[in-house]
Amino acid sequence: MRRTLKAAILGATGLVGIEYVRMLADHPYIRPAYLAGKGSVGKPYGEIVRWQTIGSVPKGIADQEVKPTDPKLMDDVDIVFSPLPQGAAGPVEEQFAKLGFYVISNSPDHRFDMDVPMMIPEVNPHTASLIDEQRRRRDWKGFIVTTPLCTAQGASIPLAPIFMNFKMNGVMLTTMQSLSGAGYPGIASLDIVDNALPLGDGYDAKTVKEVTRILSEVRRRIQDPPLEEVTLDATTHRIATIHGHYEVAYVTFKEDTDVHKVKEAMEGFIGEPQELKLPSAPERPILITDQDARPQVFFDRWAGNPPGMSVVVGRLKQVNRRTVRFVSLIHNTVRGAAGGGILTAELLVEKGYIDKR
Amino acid sequence: MRRTLKAAILGATGLVGIEYVRMLADHPYIRPAYLAGKGSVGKPYGEIVRWQTIGSVPKGIADQEVKPTDPKLMDDVDIVFSPLPQGAAGPVEEQFAKLGFYVISNSPDHRFDMDVPMMIPEVNPHTASLIDEQRRRRDWKGFIVTTPLCTAQGASIPLAPIFMNFKMNGVMLTTMQSLSGAGYPGIASLDIVDNALPLGDGYDAKTVKEVTRILSEVRRRIQDPPLEEVTLDATTHRIATIHGHYEVAYVTFKEDTDVHKVKEAMEGFIGEPQELKLPSAPERPILITDQDARPQVFFDRWAGNPPGMSVVVGRLKQVNRRTVRFVSLIHNTVRGAAGGGILTAELLVEKGYIDKR
Amino acid sequence: MRRTLKAAILGATGLVGIEYVRMLADHPYIRPAYLAGKGSVGKPYGEIVRWQTIGSVPKGIADQEVKPTDPKLMDDVDIVFSPLPQGAAGPVEEQFAKLGFYVISNSPDHRFDMDVPMMIPEVNPHTASLIDEQRRRRDWKGFIVTTPLCTAQGASIPLAPIFMNFKMNGVMLTTMQSLSGAGYPGIASLDIVDNALPLGDGYDAKTVKEVTRILSEVRRRIQDPPLEEVTLDATTHRIATIHGHYEVAYVTFKEDTDVHKVKEAMEGFIGEPQELKLPSAPERPILITDQDARPQVFFDRWAGNPPGMSVVVGRLKQVNRRTVRFVSLIHNTVRGAAGGGILTAELLVEKGYIDKR
Amino acid sequence: MRRTLKAAILGATGLVGIEYVRMLADHPYIRPAYLAGKGSVGKPYGEIVRWQTIGSVPKGIADQEVKPTDPKLMDDVDIVFSPLPQGAAGPVEEQFAKLGFYVISNSPDHRFDMDVPMMIPEVNPHTASLIDEQRRRRDWKGFIVTTPLCTAQGASIPLAPIFMNFKMNGVMLTTMQSLSGAGYPGIASLDIVDNALPLGDGYDAKTVKEVTRILSEVRRRIQDPPLEEVTLDATTHRIATIHGHYEVAYVTFKEDTDVHKVKEAMEGFIGEPQELKLPSAPERPILITDQDARPQVFFDRWAGNPPGMSVVVGRLKQVNRRTVRFVSLIHNTVRGAAGGGILTAELLVEKGYIDKR
Repeated sequence: MRRTLKAAILGATGLVGIEYVRMLADHPYIRPAYLAGKGSVGKPYGEIVRWQTIGSVPKGIADQEVKPTDPKLMDDVDIVFSPLPQGAAGPVEEQFAKLGFYVISNSPDHRFDMDVPMMIPEVNPHTASLIDEQRRRRDWKGFIVTTPLCTAQGASIPLAPIFMNFKMNGVMLTTMQSLSGAGYPGIASLDIVDNALPLGDGYDAKTVKEVTRILSEVRRRIQDPPLEEVTLDATTHRIATIHGHYEVAYVTFKEDTDVHKVKEAMEGFIGEPQELKLPSAPERPILITDQDARPQVFFDRWAGNPPGMSVVVGRLKQVNRRTVRFVSLIHNTVRGAAGGGILTAELLVEKGYIDKR
Repeated sequence: MRRTLKAAILGATGLVGIEYVRMLADHPYIRPAYLAGKGSVGKPYGEIVRWQTIGSVPKGIADQEVKPTDPKLMDDVDIVFSPLPQGAAGPVEEQFAKLGFYVISNSPDHRFDMDVPMMIPEVNPHTASLIDEQRRRRDWKGFIVTTPLCTAQGASIPLAPIFMNFKMNGVMLTTMQSLSGAGYPGIASLDIVDNALPLGDGYDAKTVKEVTRILSEVRRRIQDPPLEEVTLDATTHRIATIHGHYEVAYVTFKEDTDVHKVKEAMEGFIGEPQELKLPSAPERPILITDQDARPQVFFDRWAGNPPGMSVVVGRLKQVNRRTVRFVSLIHNTVRGAAGGGILTAELLVEKGYIDKR
Repeated sequence: MRRTLKAAILGATGLVGIEYVRMLADHPYIRPAYLAGKGSVGKPYGEIVRWQTIGSVPKGIADQEVKPTDPKLMDDVDIVFSPLPQGAAGPVEEQFAKLGFYVISNSPDHRFDMDVPMMIPEVNPHTASLIDEQRRRRDWKGFIVTTPLCTAQGASIPLAPIFMNFKMNGVMLTTMQSLSGAGYPGIASLDIVDNALPLGDGYDAKTVKEVTRILSEVRRRIQDPPLEEVTLDATTHRIATIHGHYEVAYVTFKEDTDVHKVKEAMEGFIGEPQELKLPSAPERPILITDQDARPQVFFDRWAGNPPGMSVVVGRLKQVNRRTVRFVSLIHNTVRGAAGGGILTAELLVEKGYIDKR
Repeated sequence: MRRTLKAAILGATGLVGIEYVRMLADHPYIRPAYLAGKGSVGKPYGEIVRWQTIGSVPKGIADQEVKPTDPKLMDDVDIVFSPLPQGAAGPVEEQFAKLGFYVISNSPDHRFDMDVPMMIPEVNPHTASLIDEQRRRRDWKGFIVTTPLCTAQGASIPLAPIFMNFKMNGVMLTTMQSLSGAGYPGIASLDIVDNALPLGDGYDAKTVKEVTRILSEVRRRIQDPPLEEVTLDATTHRIATIHGHYEVAYVTFKEDTDVHKVKEAMEGFIGEPQELKLPSAPERPILITDQDARPQVFFDRWAGNPPGMSVVVGRLKQVNRRTVRFVSLIHNTVRGAAGGGILTAELLVEKGYIDKR
């Protein structure tokens, strides 16, 4: 029998932190044991948290005291989940990994270290082996594994089976992202009421950069065209939604490509999490809807089981013989962050990188 | 000297009706003389109108009584502006045209009659000559001229100079449209708070159909590729903005095309309204912004002079050698409806279709 | 052992209908057996419902076919829940009651029939006895029991223990109500984006009328002042929230009244549902928060267990010796409608009005 | 003839700063000559300002360079308008006043200095004489005059004529305030989408404190009851509106008071600005509407001439013989800040405190 793993959640009162707490409260073998915060240390979690998600603070957790982000106090912690903000995350995560902690990070700071996996468990599980190199090069007992930007995940999960199977030539993304993706306080209300807020060149570029890396790690069945010849572009925005990134993708191909086959590829797509029946793996990472005006952010962001772990794809259309259009909807703080982190942890347990004893 | 033309505004209390009233209140030679409504006949306009625009009900108009939509009462009316809703508009407009009225319609009902112009004055002014055929075929003294769907205008105005000058191959549009485009009561609040509302296949299709017709009427400088070989597609949505349709366009070309030249073509684009210095013609129909996160709906929808008559284009980017990205923002009830209608009327006056004496 | 009661839900795809479905899916002895709709008859419930609440359409219900509102098809139905809209509800409910059905209505049409209870089970459970009179007078086997307007419940539940125990002199309410209270499509988006929508004299008046009746049925411990001498007033509004009516109450008293005692009275308030441990009874109908800027609509509307069944009261303040201020937050479609209906049904089962066998 | 006065606007790119710029661009004798900012010094005003108001950056101002907040560079400045944020404002304003500048401040820092006027020109113009004391005590050539909190003005302007004329006993306010009142970035979007945000005890208290002071400076026609015996209370909130504070007031009286007389008092209320025909004085500081569901924030916040300078009062009701209810709507950044500041400056010019030569 598996022992329970004790998890520390850094930034536990943040928008991703609360999803870790919510999902781990019912987890079969990972327990939210150490809730780290800043500014609220010493206070009962339930009193100070902004619970901007479904349900309410789980019993038994509401009374836990928020603790400092201090590895010396975490002797019995097995996994560290780090949804810390950019800049703050980097040095903290490194410190933890050096001290032997297994760190699963949702933060961008180490995503492009060459020996750090940036993982979507269904898409590039084999990149877990980078951990071996990481430890060797850095002489660490612990490690850092990251998950990609929520926006990049919303695109990459449906694009993975397409790039695996078809001669994809280009992807032109337009996003309508939710406010929670920017953290709290994040987006100013005066930027978003009666407005759409373009996120600008920097955000567009990082989305493309991450999608590019993920696709480079997909196990393709065809080799043509090479990724360098595929054009990827993104135009990113926030709108006044609380959770859920909605993305419109126009995909072009080098040869005639049938939208029904593209649909089949997405619908049938599963990966190691499904094969291994990991506890947080949805039956299907991609759910397809045929309804005309769906998915919709409000109604579909919690799709899948666990809720919010499936990306919903819809509005599939054959634009011309070599162009297909679809839209995707991802729950950015669940599949795109906390849920993705937990699924990654579960995979690393199976692969032996996290000791289950 | 020009005499003043008396205009009737049908649906004068609607969202487009109020922009007609606002713009005509200061017009040099068209006067809002007859305000037709339904359900509010006999009441003072200023008391019952929902003035969902800038400023307040113009003095001298607030006290005008709302009148029935009855041609018998409109003896001295010179122009009829009809922003009536789909379905209602068709027969009413026909009745008026038969009786000799000059009808400028923002409604879809007659847009695809083969002898009815669907006009953006800068883009396809020569289609005014369809009026001659219309009168001949139908034996009417009056006529119907339409303006295109606001969404189609937001795309077509920037695409016109591109299609005129470059070997455009395809356009993939994603829209974030405002609530006023659907009229009042229009979109239910529960469809739009914390949501993005896909408009579905029907709306996508009519957008493409109208853009296609407009491009077919552009005066091109090149003939390749023929329009039939150009792929046009649209994925349309509403978001919680009050006015202003924001559209992201990915444009592909048959040959290498420099984004700077595309920019120049848009920036330099003018048409007959500018040459004729029509009173409601903005100096430039397309204003280009180089700012990173602009245009924004809240801040840029009233661009140009008269306010709201220029389309703002920004975020121009060379995606690859044959792909360019830009976004456009159009004030849907001004340039995309009432303002477009007034500019059309001004053009028809100059062309002699509306008698100026 | 109790047999399962089969419930029909009229208007099952509406905003209150879905809460009935959600809550009954887990109910110990009432089963959502007959989902009646209009316009969607014959279609699977899960396909056509706008599930504007938490979770997703319960398994086993998604596939149920929507059926007509026809008593002839409901032979084995034990309870009819009717959240039909005003005007439509009245005759339908009467027809059902005549035919012997037990009708629990959330609609206003019969609320002020003199022999029809308008029930908040914690507040006026004894009014169940009006059923006897109703049957006698109308010679019905079935009956109609109503629940009050959501807005009136949000005020009445906290006011009940105050009126029971203190010499309450007046109540001045200001409400900020959610969109779901108006049904779907309900409030137009253009009425609510960048706006607060006053509901006007009619809505203010019906709120006061219902609060007045409920208070008249409270079991008071004091008799002074008589209700006729108590001033009640309401100024009602909608704002852009999806669920949750937020109400500010200024309460004046005839004598010095200590806010701490008022708080105790509310906090300690329970009724028959709690004493009988009815399955949908929250432990406390009123939850008090001492946090400064709470309750908040987003964070507190699902308070209690079952979620949304407790009214949250906060910002209690001694304004002067004879004036107390508090705010209340009620989940309008749960406690204020479906949940209130289910709790009423449970009470009527206990009281023998609904046959449990 | 009057010479033109040159104004410096501190925080000129802020939400109140832009209203100063907009209003002064057309002012007959005050010119926006020096635009001070922070973080944007040296850049053209038009390029960096978030113009979150009507119209567009006035010509001739768009090109002005933003300058440092440095009195040494302001030799020829006649008036300094200071809408700086709390905390930052205090020392800066003091420095300017010491150096001989006339400072009109919208900031709270000096509002309760005993020798500093907190002025609503129609309500307490005589408090200008505090300037004499201020100069004597502090040995300053310049001075500081403040305007009250926008929320306090929305209540005080309609309450002034009531308190002047009737035996007002208590006021219970509930507010729904706009986002612009909190500045930019101000309120986090996640605090306001699908929510109403209570502002808490601190904000409630400062509203009451300022209303109390203003009422203490009203020129009453009756002396009973003394202000100390009047109960004032406020429950304050923000909702997702951009501009416009909406406030519900329940007013109680010591004797029977006729709502029609209260209405007349408000409607007829004018003050020195109207008598002196100051350029920014609206004809009526209070406009009364009899429409049932008005005022509404979106439609009525720009009431009056200059737009936004009149408070709109509506929903007047006789609650009982000694209680009256009304709602008020004030444009918080215009009448409640910049417009109030300009009107104050105009009054001080007339009174000789600002040299007009």
